[in-house]
Amino acid sequence: MIGYLGPRGSFTHQALLAYLQATNNTSTLDCFEATTISQVIDAVNNGKIKYGVVPVENSIEGAVGETLDQLIRTSQKVTINHEIIIPIEHCLITKTKNLNEITKVIAHSQALSQCQSYLKRFLPNVELEPTTSNSIGVKRVSELTNGNVAAIGPKQAAEIYKVPVYEAGINDEKENFTRFTLIGTETPEPTGLDKTTIAFGVPYDKPGTLVRVLNSFASNNINLTRIESRPSKKALGEYIFFIDLEGHRNDPSLKKALSEVVSDFSFYRWLGSYPRWNP
Amino acid sequence: MIGYLGPRGSFTHQALLAYLQATNNTSTLDCFEATTISQVIDAVNNGKIKYGVVPVENSIEGAVGETLDQLIRTSQKVTINHEIIIPIEHCLITKTKNLNEITKVIAHSQALSQCQSYLKRFLPNVELEPTTSNSIGVKRVSELTNGNVAAIGPKQAAEIYKVPVYEAGINDEKENFTRFTLIGTETPEPTGLDKTTIAFGVPYDKPGTLVRVLNSFASNNINLTRIESRPSKKALGEYIFFIDLEGHRNDPSLKKALSEVVSDFSFYRWLGSYPRWNP
Repeated sequence: MIGYLGPRGSFTHQALLAYLQATNNTSTLDCFEATTISQVIDAVNNGKIKYGVVPVENSIEGAVGETLDQLIRTSQKVTINHEIIIPIEHCLITKTKNLNEITKVIAHSQALSQCQSYLKRFLPNVELEPTTSNSIGVKRVSELTNGNVAAIGPKQAAEIYKVPVYEAGINDEKENFTRFTLIGTETPEPTGLDKTTIAFGVPYDKPGTLVRVLNSFASNNINLTRIESRPSKKALGEYIFFIDLEGHRNDPSLKKALSEVVSDFSFYRWLGSYPRWNP
Repeated sequence: MIGYLGPRGSFTHQALLAYLQATNNTSTLDCFEATTISQVIDAVNNGKIKYGVVPVENSIEGAVGETLDQLIRTSQKVTINHEIIIPIEHCLITKTKNLNEITKVIAHSQALSQCQSYLKRFLPNVELEPTTSNSIGVKRVSELTNGNVAAIGPKQAAEIYKVPVYEAGINDEKENFTRFTLIGTETPEPTGLDKTTIAFGVPYDKPGTLVRVLNSFASNNINLTRIESRPSKKALGEYIFFIDLEGHRNDPSLKKALSEVVSDFSFYRWLGSYPRWNP
């Protein structure tokens, strides 16, 4: 069974479908629709489901803090098993064909913020109501009898809840992608085109540690594709760093670079070595 | 005039009051209450207000992306003029004295997530409704005639909207602080206990640049107190780094370190040199 951040029609649901298609997985997998990211990660950790799909990073909004925080909070069992990247296209979804009838737009705050310019230009005086997910907004619009409310979300959500798309691609930045991860409890074999994600803390009284760690990767010719910091939650100014590296943890150079620095960490967690998204 | 992310009673409002007290500012400044972070930053940039207070980082939830993104989007005029740090104490605010009467808790999603353990333990079956700000939740509770709904927020909001605090300090992590910045258009003189914030991009095809930049600071004995990455919004995997350094941009060592690396940046913005919070 495979879990995802639902409801059906969400961008995470789309990422799951893209993954199944890219890996030619035609089996009719049972799906588990979770309402929060933590629920997906917990279910994989408890063995209730084999895999889960959760968002990690959007090209406009940045890191998804909840995913990063939960990945290091659970036991060592859950790791990243695959990267998934999909384009994000927001649509204005509403029952009316006349924008003047719309008095309210409901959507996740990220969607509202990603469509600011469109909303300012075409719907300058409407109320903006943040919802916990775009799909929930589309579902709410589907249940209304009038056309006063519009939702923002993916075209798949409009199809599922049978509400017309008034306009597609209303996001301000057209280059809008979200990176998801398939989480599980296995370590995929190296494919030659892999990434490794690690999380670590550096001692508060040794400010040079982060630089030493990055230098170790650089001197071993390991490309760092991403660095993200999250609060340690212990004290303001103490961080956990999340780093994505090119390569698999079985690669000798990656092993060597890590062995040079692992004793410097106040906290260390290998979060997975997995195939890059390359459909 | 000084603007802040309102409404009155918000944590940002508290930060503003803490700043005025710490700097012995007893003048009766006119305050401008904004509904979004962008509104505060725009108003300072347009000269409508002289100063603004916005959150930048919480010790549990991490960076406030909107603040970082807006600071580099506006013209060069707006800089950080002071750091402000206040403790965050969440209270359960409701008209009832009986928890069994509560069917719904409304608060900002960060507050709901920061009080998860308390809510699971004492209010396991209530509906959780995210609002755009905690103070708006408290205001809504104040307008209800029954005690079915509770809000989460600072005790100041409870005082302002005259709703009783049922319990104070319900946040899961007791070490919960938020860092704010006073923004303006001046550069404060060095005080000997300053910080400097810079933002920069590194060329996509030169992955070693970030390490070189950090090495330059380290070799000039400049402590880095924070590193944060935000998406460039141009392509997934391209970042803008925000770095807080100890010192003032007039310090010779900081000048030297910056001069060594500034030509490596694909984008560079000095965001201010300002007194550290040391009330």
